[in-house]
Amino acid sequence: VKVAVVGVGLIGGSVGLAARRSGTMRILGVDRSPSELSRARERGVIDAGYSDLREAAGLADIVLFCTPVDAIAGQVLAAAPACRPGTVLTDVGSVKASVVRPLAGRLPGGVAFVGGHPLAGSEKQGLDYADPELFRKRLVVLTPGETSTDNALAQVREFWESLGAQVRCMTPEAHDQALAITSHLPHLVASALAGVLPPEFADLTAGGFRDTTRIAEADPDLWCAILDGNRGDLLKALEGLLARLAQFRDVVAAGDRQALRELLLAGRERRRLTR
Amino acid sequence: VKVAVVGVGLIGGSVGLAARRSGTMRILGVDRSPSELSRARERGVIDAGYSDLREAAGLADIVLFCTPVDAIAGQVLAAAPACRPGTVLTDVGSVKASVVRPLAGRLPGGVAFVGGHPLAGSEKQGLDYADPELFRKRLVVLTPGETSTDNALAQVREFWESLGAQVRCMTPEAHDQALAITSHLPHLVASALAGVLPPEFADLTAGGFRDTTRIAEADPDLWCAILDGNRGDLLKALEGLLARLAQFRDVVAAGDRQALRELLLAGRERRRLTR
Repeated sequence: VKVAVVGVGLIGGSVGLAARRSGTMRILGVDRSPSELSRARERGVIDAGYSDLREAAGLADIVLFCTPVDAIAGQVLAAAPACRPGTVLTDVGSVKASVVRPLAGRLPGGVAFVGGHPLAGSEKQGLDYADPELFRKRLVVLTPGETSTDNALAQVREFWESLGAQVRCMTPEAHDQALAITSHLPHLVASALAGVLPPEFADLTAGGFRDTTRIAEADPDLWCAILDGNRGDLLKALEGLLARLAQFRDVVAAGDRQALRELLLAGRERRRLTR
Repeated sequence: VKVAVVGVGLIGGSVGLAARRSGTMRILGVDRSPSELSRARERGVIDAGYSDLREAAGLADIVLFCTPVDAIAGQVLAAAPACRPGTVLTDVGSVKASVVRPLAGRLPGGVAFVGGHPLAGSEKQGLDYADPELFRKRLVVLTPGETSTDNALAQVREFWESLGAQVRCMTPEAHDQALAITSHLPHLVASALAGVLPPEFADLTAGGFRDTTRIAEADPDLWCAILDGNRGDLLKALEGLLARLAQFRDVVAAGDRQALRELLLAGRERRRLTR
Protein backbone atom coordinates (compact mmCIF):
# COMPACT_ATOMS: atom_id res chain seq x y z
CA VAL A 1 0.00 0.00 0.00
CA LYS A 2 1.35 3.40 -0.98
CA VAL A 3 0.36 6.25 1.34
CA ALA A 4 1.05 9.84 0.31
CA VAL A 5 1.44 11.99 3.43
CA VAL A 6 0.90 15.64 2.58
CA GLY A 7 2.72 17.83 5.11
CA VAL A 8 5.49 16.15 7.10
CA GLY A 9 5.28 18.02 10.39
CA LEU A 10 4.45 16.60 13.82
CA ILE A 11 1.37 14.65 12.71
CA GLY A 12 2.47 13.68 9.21
CA GLY A 13 5.87 12.70 10.52
CA SER A 14 4.36 10.58 13.29
CA VAL A 15 2.11 8.84 10.75
CA GLY A 16 5.14 8.15 8.57
CA LEU A 17 7.18 6.66 11.40
CA ALA A 18 4.29 4.50 12.60
CA ALA A 19 3.22 3.33 9.15
CA ARG A 20 6.72 2.46 7.95
CA ARG A 21 7.15 0.24 11.02
CA SER A 22 4.28 -1.94 9.79
CA GLY A 23 6.46 -3.06 6.87
CA THR A 24 3.47 -3.16 4.51
CA MET A 25 3.22 0.52 3.63
CA ARG A 26 5.38 2.74 1.52
CA ILE A 27 5.25 6.40 2.54
CA LEU A 28 5.43 9.13 -0.11
CA GLY A 29 6.09 12.42 1.65
CA VAL A 30 4.77 15.58 0.07
CA ASP A 31 6.01 18.96 1.23
CA ARG A 32 6.73 22.30 -0.36
CA SER A 33 10.06 22.44 1.42
CA PRO A 34 12.80 20.28 -0.20
CA SER A 35 14.89 20.55 2.97
CA GLU A 36 12.02 19.20 5.10
CA LEU A 37 11.65 16.30 2.64
CA SER A 38 15.30 15.38 2.85
CA ARG A 39 15.24 15.67 6.63
CA ALA A 40 12.18 13.40 6.66
CA ARG A 41 13.99 10.86 4.51
CA GLU A 42 17.08 10.95 6.71
CA ARG A 43 14.97 10.41 9.83
CA GLY A 44 13.21 7.40 8.33
CA VAL A 45 9.84 9.14 8.25
CA ILE A 46 9.21 8.71 4.51
CA ASP A 47 10.40 6.41 1.75
CA ALA A 48 10.42 9.05 -0.97
CA GLY A 49 9.83 12.78 -1.17
CA TYR A 50 7.71 14.75 -3.61
CA SER A 51 7.33 18.48 -3.97
CA ASP A 52 4.51 17.99 -6.51
CA LEU A 53 1.27 16.98 -4.80
CA ARG A 54 -0.34 15.75 -8.03
CA GLU A 55 2.60 13.52 -8.87
CA ALA A 56 2.49 11.79 -5.47
CA ALA A 57 -1.32 11.60 -5.53
CA GLY A 58 -1.18 9.81 -8.88
CA LEU A 59 1.02 7.09 -7.38
CA ALA A 60 -0.79 6.62 -4.07
CA ASP A 61 -3.53 4.30 -2.81
CA ILE A 62 -4.27 6.58 0.14
CA VAL A 63 -3.56 10.31 0.30
CA LEU A 64 -3.49 11.70 3.86
CA PHE A 65 -3.64 15.48 4.24
CA CYS A 66 -1.74 16.68 7.34
CA THR A 67 -1.83 20.35 6.43
CA PRO A 68 -3.52 23.37 8.08
CA VAL A 69 -7.30 22.98 8.17
CA ASP A 70 -7.93 25.97 5.92
CA ALA A 71 -5.69 24.49 3.20
CA ILE A 72 -7.05 20.93 3.09
CA ALA A 73 -10.18 21.28 0.91
CA GLY A 74 -8.27 23.22 -1.77
CA GLN A 75 -5.46 20.66 -1.80
CA VAL A 76 -7.96 17.80 -2.05
CA LEU A 77 -9.58 19.43 -5.07
CA ALA A 78 -6.16 20.00 -6.63
CA ALA A 79 -4.99 16.42 -6.05
CA ALA A 80 -8.15 14.47 -6.87
CA PRO A 81 -8.05 14.78 -10.69
CA ALA A 82 -4.54 13.29 -10.67
CA CYS A 83 -5.63 10.23 -8.68
CA ARG A 84 -6.31 6.81 -10.15
CA PRO A 85 -9.87 5.48 -9.59
CA GLY A 86 -10.05 3.70 -6.25
CA THR A 87 -7.73 6.16 -4.52
CA VAL A 88 -8.91 7.20 -1.05
CA LEU A 89 -8.26 10.70 0.24
CA THR A 90 -8.47 11.54 3.92
CA ASP A 91 -7.16 14.09 6.38
CA VAL A 92 -6.27 14.78 10.03
CA GLY A 93 -7.85 18.23 10.37
CA SER A 94 -9.19 19.35 13.77
CA VAL A 95 -12.39 20.70 12.19
CA LYS A 96 -14.49 18.64 9.88
CA ALA A 97 -17.59 20.37 8.42
CA SER A 98 -15.63 23.23 6.83
CA VAL A 99 -13.23 20.68 5.29
CA VAL A 100 -15.71 18.00 4.20
CA ARG A 101 -18.81 19.93 3.12
CA PRO A 102 -17.18 22.00 0.34
CA LEU A 103 -16.04 18.78 -1.34
CA ALA A 104 -19.53 17.37 -1.94
CA GLY A 105 -20.15 16.73 -5.64
CA ARG A 106 -16.73 18.03 -6.64
CA LEU A 107 -14.59 14.88 -6.71
CA PRO A 108 -13.97 12.83 -9.88
CA GLY A 109 -15.68 9.43 -10.14
CA GLY A 110 -13.91 6.65 -8.28
CA VAL A 111 -12.08 9.04 -5.94
CA ALA A 112 -13.40 9.18 -2.38
CA PHE A 113 -12.73 11.52 0.52
CA VAL A 114 -13.24 10.44 4.15
CA GLY A 115 -12.82 13.19 6.73
CA GLY A 116 -10.68 12.20 9.72
CA HIS A 117 -9.32 13.59 12.98
CA PRO A 118 -6.93 11.71 15.26
CA LEU A 119 -7.41 13.02 18.82
CA ALA A 120 -3.69 13.20 19.43
CA GLY A 121 -1.12 15.90 19.12
CA SER A 122 1.20 18.13 21.02
CA GLU A 123 1.89 21.79 21.60
CA LYS A 124 5.22 21.02 19.94
CA GLN A 125 5.64 21.64 16.25
CA GLY A 126 7.55 19.94 13.50
CA LEU A 127 9.19 16.74 12.43
CA ASP A 128 11.62 16.73 15.36
CA TYR A 129 8.79 15.79 17.70
CA ALA A 130 7.34 13.07 15.47
CA ASP A 131 6.51 9.99 17.51
CA PRO A 132 5.48 6.59 16.09
CA GLU A 133 3.49 5.90 19.28
CA LEU A 134 1.45 9.12 19.00
CA PHE A 135 -1.72 7.34 17.86
CA ARG A 136 -1.55 4.21 20.00
CA LYS A 137 -4.85 3.71 21.86
CA ARG A 138 -5.98 7.16 20.74
CA LEU A 139 -9.33 7.81 19.17
CA VAL A 140 -9.61 8.74 15.48
CA VAL A 141 -12.93 10.26 14.45
CA LEU A 142 -13.95 9.57 10.86
CA THR A 143 -16.78 11.49 9.18
CA PRO A 144 -17.90 9.44 6.17
CA GLY A 145 -20.69 10.86 4.02
CA GLU A 146 -21.51 12.16 0.57
CA THR A 147 -17.92 12.04 -0.68
CA SER A 148 -17.09 8.56 0.61
CA THR A 149 -17.98 4.92 0.08
CA ASP A 150 -18.11 1.96 2.46
CA ASN A 151 -14.99 0.61 0.83
CA ALA A 152 -13.11 3.89 1.26
CA LEU A 153 -14.19 4.09 4.90
CA ALA A 154 -12.99 0.52 5.50
CA GLN A 155 -9.56 1.35 4.07
CA VAL A 156 -9.13 4.46 6.21
CA ARG A 157 -10.34 2.58 9.28
CA GLU A 158 -7.88 -0.22 8.64
CA PHE A 159 -5.08 2.29 8.12
CA TRP A 160 -5.59 3.95 11.53
CA GLU A 161 -6.16 0.66 13.31
CA SER A 162 -2.84 -0.59 11.92
CA LEU A 163 -1.21 2.38 13.72
CA GLY A 164 -2.80 1.29 17.00
CA ALA A 165 -5.70 3.77 17.03
CA GLN A 166 -9.39 3.20 17.64
CA VAL A 167 -11.89 4.53 15.12
CA ARG A 168 -15.30 6.09 15.70
CA CYS A 169 -17.63 7.48 13.04
CA MET A 170 -19.64 10.69 13.43
CA THR A 171 -21.11 13.37 11.22
CA PRO A 172 -18.81 16.35 10.60
CA GLU A 173 -21.27 18.55 12.50
CA ALA A 174 -21.41 16.27 15.55
CA HIS A 175 -17.60 16.17 15.56
CA ASP A 176 -17.31 19.95 15.43
CA GLN A 177 -19.87 20.49 18.16
CA ALA A 178 -18.07 18.10 20.51
CA LEU A 179 -14.55 19.25 19.68
CA ALA A 180 -15.56 22.88 20.17
CA ILE A 181 -15.93 21.99 23.84
CA THR A 182 -13.28 19.29 24.24
CA SER A 183 -10.48 20.92 22.25
CA HIS A 184 -11.09 24.33 20.70
CA LEU A 185 -12.50 26.03 23.80
CA PRO A 186 -9.69 24.71 26.06
CA HIS A 187 -7.23 26.09 23.57
CA LEU A 188 -8.82 29.52 23.57
CA VAL A 189 -9.02 29.50 27.38
CA ALA A 190 -5.40 28.38 27.83
CA SER A 191 -4.30 31.18 25.56
CA ALA A 192 -6.46 33.79 27.32
CA LEU A 193 -5.18 32.67 30.74
CA ALA A 194 -1.56 32.81 29.58
CA GLY A 195 -2.26 36.17 27.97
CA VAL A 196 -3.36 37.85 31.22
CA LEU A 197 -0.24 36.75 33.14
CA PRO A 198 1.75 39.87 34.06
CA PRO A 199 5.36 39.09 33.04
CA GLU A 200 6.61 39.99 36.53
CA PHE A 201 4.57 37.13 38.03
CA ALA A 202 5.93 34.50 35.63
CA ASP A 203 8.27 32.95 38.19
CA LEU A 204 5.45 32.70 40.73
CA THR A 205 3.72 30.10 38.55
CA ALA A 206 3.84 26.41 39.40
CA GLY A 207 2.47 23.19 37.95
CA GLY A 208 -1.15 24.34 38.04
CA PHE A 209 -0.63 27.37 35.85
CA ARG A 210 1.75 25.57 33.57
CA ASP A 211 -0.54 22.61 32.90
CA THR A 212 -3.58 24.81 32.47
CA THR A 213 -1.77 26.90 29.84
CA ARG A 214 0.45 24.28 28.18
CA ILE A 215 -1.42 24.29 24.88
CA ALA A 216 -1.09 28.08 24.65
CA GLU A 217 2.37 27.33 23.23
CA ALA A 218 0.95 25.68 20.12
CA ASP A 219 1.35 27.23 16.67
CA PRO A 220 -0.81 30.40 16.43
CA ASP A 221 -1.31 30.00 12.68
CA LEU A 222 -2.55 26.42 12.87
CA TRP A 223 -4.89 27.29 15.72
CA CYS A 224 -6.10 30.49 14.15
CA ALA A 225 -7.37 28.39 11.24
CA ILE A 226 -8.93 25.80 13.55
CA LEU A 227 -10.75 28.28 15.79
CA ASP A 228 -11.93 30.30 12.78
CA GLY A 229 -12.94 27.07 11.01
CA ASN A 230 -15.34 26.14 13.81
CA ARG A 231 -16.61 29.60 14.64
CA GLY A 232 -20.26 28.89 15.35
CA ASP A 233 -19.75 25.94 17.67
CA LEU A 234 -16.82 27.62 19.39
CA LEU A 235 -18.83 30.76 20.14
CA LYS A 236 -21.63 28.65 21.61
CA ALA A 237 -19.13 26.75 23.77
CA LEU A 238 -17.55 30.03 24.87
CA GLU A 239 -20.92 31.45 25.91
CA GLY A 240 -21.44 28.38 28.08
CA LEU A 241 -18.08 28.87 29.74
CA LEU A 242 -18.64 32.61 30.26
CA ALA A 243 -21.93 31.82 32.01
CA ARG A 244 -20.15 29.31 34.25
CA LEU A 245 -17.40 31.80 35.08
CA ALA A 246 -20.06 34.39 35.93
CA GLN A 247 -21.58 31.86 38.36
CA PHE A 248 -18.18 31.45 39.99
CA ARG A 249 -17.78 35.24 40.16
CA ASP A 250 -21.16 35.66 41.81
CA VAL A 251 -20.68 33.00 44.47
CA VAL A 252 -17.13 34.17 45.27
CA ALA A 253 -18.32 37.79 45.51
CA ALA A 254 -21.16 36.73 47.79
CA GLY A 255 -18.83 34.64 49.94
CA ASP A 256 -21.21 31.73 49.42
CA ARG A 257 -18.88 28.89 50.37
CA GLN A 258 -21.54 26.22 49.98
CA ALA A 259 -22.38 27.23 46.41
CA LEU A 260 -18.68 27.56 45.57
CA ARG A 261 -18.07 24.07 46.89
CA GLU A 262 -20.90 22.73 44.71
CA LEU A 263 -19.35 24.29 41.60
CA LEU A 264 -15.93 22.82 42.43
CA LEU A 265 -17.46 19.40 43.12
CA ALA A 266 -19.29 19.45 39.79
CA GLY A 267 -16.04 20.30 37.98
CA ARG A 268 -14.23 17.46 39.68
CA GLU A 269 -16.96 14.98 38.76
CA ARG A 270 -16.88 15.90 35.09
CA ARG A 271 -13.09 15.88 35.02
CA ARG A 272 -13.10 12.35 36.38
CA LEU A 273 -15.15 11.20 33.39
CA THR A 274 -12.22 11.98 31.10
CA ARG A 275 -9.83 9.46 32.66
CA VAL B 1 15.80 20.33 65.60
CA LYS B 2 12.28 19.23 66.40
CA VAL B 3 9.69 20.13 63.78
CA ALA B 4 6.01 19.67 64.54
CA VAL B 5 4.12 19.12 61.29
CA VAL B 6 0.43 19.85 61.78
CA GLY B 7 -1.62 17.94 59.19
CA VAL B 8 0.10 14.93 57.60
CA GLY B 9 -1.48 14.96 54.14
CA LEU B 10 0.25 15.44 50.80
CA ILE B 11 2.23 18.54 51.82
CA GLY B 12 2.85 17.68 55.48
CA GLY B 13 3.80 14.15 54.52
CA SER B 14 6.21 15.35 51.82
CA VAL B 15 7.81 17.75 54.33
CA GLY B 16 8.19 14.87 56.79
CA LEU B 17 9.82 12.54 54.26
CA ALA B 18 12.19 15.25 53.01
CA ALA B 19 13.13 16.56 56.48
CA ARG B 20 13.74 13.14 58.01
CA ARG B 21 16.18 12.39 55.20
CA SER B 22 18.38 15.25 56.39
CA GLY B 23 19.16 13.28 59.53
CA THR B 24 19.19 16.43 61.66
CA MET B 25 15.46 16.90 62.19
CA ARG B 26 12.99 15.00 64.30
CA ILE B 27 9.42 15.19 62.95
CA LEU B 28 6.50 15.31 65.35
CA GLY B 29 3.34 14.62 63.37
CA VAL B 30 0.11 16.21 64.57
CA ASP B 31 -3.20 15.00 63.24
CA ARG B 32 -6.69 14.52 64.60
CA SER B 33 -6.83 11.07 63.07
CA PRO B 34 -4.93 8.37 65.07
CA SER B 35 -5.04 6.05 62.05
CA GLU B 36 -3.37 8.69 59.84
CA LEU B 37 -0.69 9.17 62.49
CA SER B 38 0.06 5.46 62.65
CA ARG B 39 0.09 5.23 58.86
CA ALA B 40 2.49 8.20 58.78
CA ARG B 41 4.78 6.49 61.29
CA GLU B 42 4.73 3.23 59.33
CA ARG B 43 5.63 5.06 56.13
CA GLY B 44 8.57 6.82 57.72
CA VAL B 45 6.97 10.25 57.38
CA ILE B 46 7.12 11.17 61.07
CA ASP B 47 9.14 10.10 64.11
CA ALA B 48 6.29 10.40 66.59
CA GLY B 49 2.57 11.14 66.42
CA TYR B 50 0.52 13.54 68.54
CA SER B 51 -3.20 14.08 68.54
CA ASP B 52 -2.81 17.06 70.88
CA LEU B 53 -1.53 20.13 69.03
CA ARG B 54 -0.50 21.94 72.21
CA GLU B 55 1.53 18.99 73.47
CA ALA B 56 3.53 18.76 70.22
CA ALA B 57 3.88 22.56 70.00
CA GLY B 58 5.36 22.62 73.50
CA LEU B 59 8.10 20.20 72.41
CA ALA B 60 8.94 21.71 69.01
CA ASP B 61 11.46 24.26 67.78
CA ILE B 62 9.48 24.85 64.59
CA VAL B 63 5.73 24.27 64.15
CA LEU B 64 4.65 23.98 60.51
CA PHE B 65 0.92 24.23 59.81
CA CYS B 66 -0.09 22.14 56.75
CA THR B 67 -3.82 22.44 57.34
CA PRO B 68 -6.61 24.12 55.32
CA VAL B 69 -6.05 27.88 54.99
CA ASP B 70 -9.18 28.78 56.93
CA ALA B 71 -8.02 26.70 59.90
CA ILE B 72 -4.44 27.93 60.22
CA ALA B 73 -4.84 31.22 62.11
CA GLY B 74 -7.06 29.61 64.74
CA GLN B 75 -4.65 26.72 65.22
CA VAL B 76 -1.70 29.11 65.52
CA LEU B 77 -3.51 31.03 68.25
CA ALA B 78 -4.35 27.76 70.02
CA ALA B 79 -0.80 26.42 69.82
CA ALA B 80 1.22 29.57 70.55
CA PRO B 81 0.54 29.77 74.33
CA ALA B 82 1.89 26.23 74.70
CA CYS B 83 5.16 27.03 72.90
CA ARG B 84 8.48 27.70 74.63
CA PRO B 85 10.01 31.14 73.94
CA GLY B 86 12.05 31.01 70.73
CA THR B 87 9.66 28.65 68.99
CA VAL B 88 8.97 29.60 65.36
CA LEU B 89 5.55 28.96 63.85
CA THR B 90 5.03 28.93 60.09
CA ASP B 91 2.63 27.51 57.51
CA VAL B 92 2.20 26.36 53.91
CA GLY B 93 -1.12 28.04 53.14
CA SER B 94 -1.92 29.15 49.58
CA VAL B 95 -3.25 32.50 50.78
CA LYS B 96 -1.30 34.72 53.11
CA ALA B 97 -2.99 37.98 54.17
CA SER B 98 -6.05 36.25 55.65
CA VAL B 99 -3.75 33.89 57.58
CA VAL B 100 -1.05 36.34 58.70
CA ARG B 101 -2.92 39.59 59.37
CA PRO B 102 -5.29 38.25 62.08
CA LEU B 103 -2.27 37.13 64.11
CA ALA B 104 -0.76 40.60 64.56
CA GLY B 105 -0.42 41.50 68.23
CA ARG B 106 -1.94 38.22 69.40
CA LEU B 107 1.10 35.97 69.88
CA PRO B 108 2.83 35.54 73.27
CA GLY B 109 6.28 37.14 73.68
CA GLY B 110 9.12 35.13 72.21
CA VAL B 111 6.86 33.20 69.83
CA ALA B 112 7.09 34.23 66.17
CA PHE B 113 4.97 33.44 63.14
CA VAL B 114 6.35 33.60 59.58
CA GLY B 115 3.83 33.09 56.79
CA GLY B 116 4.95 30.68 54.10
CA HIS B 117 3.77 29.11 50.85
CA PRO B 118 5.72 26.49 48.90
CA LEU B 119 4.73 26.73 45.22
CA ALA B 120 4.44 22.99 44.88
CA GLY B 121 1.60 20.55 45.16
CA SER B 122 -0.58 18.15 43.29
CA GLU B 123 -4.20 17.57 42.47
CA LYS B 124 -3.72 14.35 44.42
CA GLN B 125 -4.66 14.26 48.08
CA GLY B 126 -3.24 12.53 51.10
CA LEU B 127 -0.22 10.85 52.54
CA ASP B 128 -0.08 8.18 49.82
CA TYR B 129 1.17 10.76 47.35
CA ALA B 130 3.76 12.30 49.68
CA ASP B 131 7.03 12.86 47.85
CA PRO B 132 10.34 13.86 49.46
CA GLU B 133 11.37 15.56 46.20
CA LEU B 134 8.24 17.75 46.05
CA PHE B 135 10.06 20.92 47.10
CA ARG B 136 13.34 20.47 45.26
CA LYS B 137 14.14 23.58 43.18
CA ARG B 138 10.65 24.92 43.91
CA LEU B 139 10.02 28.43 45.17
CA VAL B 140 8.80 29.01 48.73
CA VAL B 141 7.35 32.47 49.36
CA LEU B 142 7.79 33.74 52.92
CA THR B 143 5.89 36.76 54.21
CA PRO B 144 7.72 38.04 57.29
CA GLY B 145 6.23 41.05 59.09
CA GLU B 146 4.72 42.18 62.35
CA THR B 147 4.57 38.72 63.87
CA SER B 148 8.10 37.64 62.96
CA THR B 149 11.72 38.44 63.73
CA ASP B 150 14.88 38.29 61.63
CA ASN B 151 15.94 35.25 63.59
CA ALA B 152 12.62 33.45 63.01
CA LEU B 153 12.77 34.26 59.29
CA ALA B 154 16.32 32.88 59.10
CA GLN B 155 15.22 29.61 60.71
CA VAL B 156 12.29 29.14 58.35
CA ARG B 157 14.46 30.01 55.36
CA GLU B 158 17.09 27.52 56.43
CA PHE B 159 14.44 24.86 56.94
CA TRP B 160 13.09 25.15 53.39
CA GLU B 161 16.54 25.45 51.86
CA SER B 162 17.50 22.22 53.58
CA LEU B 163 14.62 20.56 51.67
CA GLY B 164 16.04 21.85 48.37
CA ALA B 165 13.70 24.82 47.92
CA GLN B 166 14.49 28.43 47.08
CA VAL B 167 13.07 31.17 49.28
CA ARG B 168 11.70 34.56 48.30
CA CYS B 169 10.22 37.16 50.66
CA MET B 170 7.13 39.25 49.83
CA THR B 171 4.35 41.00 51.70
CA PRO B 172 1.24 38.86 52.25
CA GLU B 173 -0.68 41.24 49.97
CA ALA B 174 1.85 41.04 47.12
CA HIS B 175 1.78 37.25 47.42
CA ASP B 176 -2.01 37.11 47.26
CA GLN B 177 -2.22 39.47 44.30
CA ALA B 178 0.28 37.39 42.31
CA LEU B 179 -1.08 34.00 43.30
CA ALA B 180 -4.63 35.10 42.44
CA ILE B 181 -3.42 35.15 38.84
CA THR B 182 -0.83 32.37 38.85
CA SER B 183 -2.75 29.80 40.91
CA HIS B 184 -6.24 30.67 42.14
CA LEU B 185 -7.60 31.89 38.80
CA PRO B 186 -6.25 28.86 36.88
CA HIS B 187 -7.94 26.67 39.44
CA LEU B 188 -11.27 28.38 39.03
CA VAL B 189 -10.94 28.27 35.23
CA ALA B 190 -9.96 24.60 35.15
CA SER B 191 -12.98 23.78 37.27
CA ALA B 192 -15.33 25.89 35.14
CA LEU B 193 -14.02 24.31 31.94
CA ALA B 194 -14.41 20.80 33.35
CA GLY B 195 -17.86 21.75 34.63
CA VAL B 196 -19.21 22.64 31.18
CA LEU B 197 -18.13 19.34 29.62
CA PRO B 198 -21.24 17.41 28.60
CA PRO B 199 -20.72 13.85 29.95
CA GLU B 200 -21.39 12.35 26.52
CA PHE B 201 -18.33 14.17 25.11
CA ALA B 202 -15.97 12.90 27.80
CA ASP B 203 -14.32 10.29 25.58
CA LEU B 204 -13.74 12.89 22.86
CA THR B 205 -11.25 14.69 25.09
CA ALA B 206 -7.51 14.37 24.56
CA GLY B 207 -4.35 15.72 26.15
CA GLY B 208 -5.31 19.36 25.69
CA PHE B 209 -8.54 19.14 27.65
CA ARG B 210 -7.01 16.87 30.24
CA ASP B 211 -4.03 19.11 30.97
CA THR B 212 -6.11 22.25 31.00
CA THR B 213 -8.49 20.76 33.57
CA ARG B 214 -6.10 18.58 35.60
CA ILE B 215 -6.29 20.70 38.74
CA ALA B 216 -10.09 20.55 38.68
CA GLU B 217 -9.63 17.18 40.42
CA ALA B 218 -8.15 18.78 43.53
CA ASP B 219 -10.00 18.72 46.87
CA PRO B 220 -13.06 21.02 46.67
CA ASP B 221 -12.95 21.80 50.39
CA LEU B 222 -9.32 22.88 50.40
CA TRP B 223 -9.86 25.02 47.31
CA CYS B 224 -13.10 26.47 48.53
CA ALA B 225 -11.19 27.89 51.49
CA ILE B 226 -8.35 29.16 49.28
CA LEU B 227 -10.57 30.89 46.73
CA ASP B 228 -12.75 32.38 49.44
CA GLY B 229 -9.64 33.40 51.39
CA ASN B 230 -8.38 35.54 48.50
CA ARG B 231 -11.71 36.87 47.32
CA GLY B 232 -10.78 40.43 46.37
CA ASP B 233 -7.68 39.61 44.35
CA LEU B 234 -9.34 36.62 42.73
CA LEU B 235 -12.31 38.68 41.57
CA LYS B 236 -9.97 41.27 40.07
CA ALA B 237 -8.03 38.53 38.27
CA LEU B 238 -11.27 36.99 37.03
CA GLU B 239 -12.46 40.32 35.62
CA GLY B 240 -9.20 40.54 33.67
CA LEU B 241 -9.73 37.08 32.23
CA LEU B 242 -13.38 37.73 31.38
CA ALA B 243 -12.29 40.83 29.46
CA ARG B 244 -9.70 38.80 27.57
CA LEU B 245 -12.25 36.08 26.75
CA ALA B 246 -14.63 38.76 25.49
CA GLN B 247 -11.86 39.98 23.16
CA PHE B 248 -11.48 36.44 21.84
CA ARG B 249 -15.26 36.17 21.39
CA ASP B 250 -15.40 39.42 19.46
CA VAL B 251 -12.56 38.61 17.06
CA VAL B 252 -13.84 35.07 16.45
CA ALA B 253 -17.36 36.36 15.84
CA ALA B 254 -16.01 38.98 13.42
CA GLY B 255 -13.86 36.39 11.62
CA ASP B 256 -10.89 38.69 12.23
CA ARG B 257 -8.09 36.18 11.69
CA GLN B 258 -5.35 38.76 12.08
CA ALA B 259 -6.58 39.93 15.48
CA LEU B 260 -7.16 36.32 16.57
CA ARG B 261 -3.60 35.48 15.61
CA GLU B 262 -2.30 38.43 17.65
CA LEU B 263 -4.18 37.19 20.73
CA LEU B 264 -2.80 33.67 20.29
CA LEU B 265 0.72 35.00 19.76
CA ALA B 266 0.49 37.09 22.93
CA GLY B 267 -0.64 34.05 24.92
CA ARG B 268 2.23 31.99 23.59
CA GLU B 269 4.77 34.68 24.51
CA ARG B 270 3.55 34.94 28.08
CA ARG B 271 3.41 31.17 28.43
CA ARG B 272 7.02 30.93 27.38
CA LEU B 273 8.03 33.18 30.28
CA THR B 274 6.93 30.47 32.73
CA ARG B 275 9.44 27.86 31.57
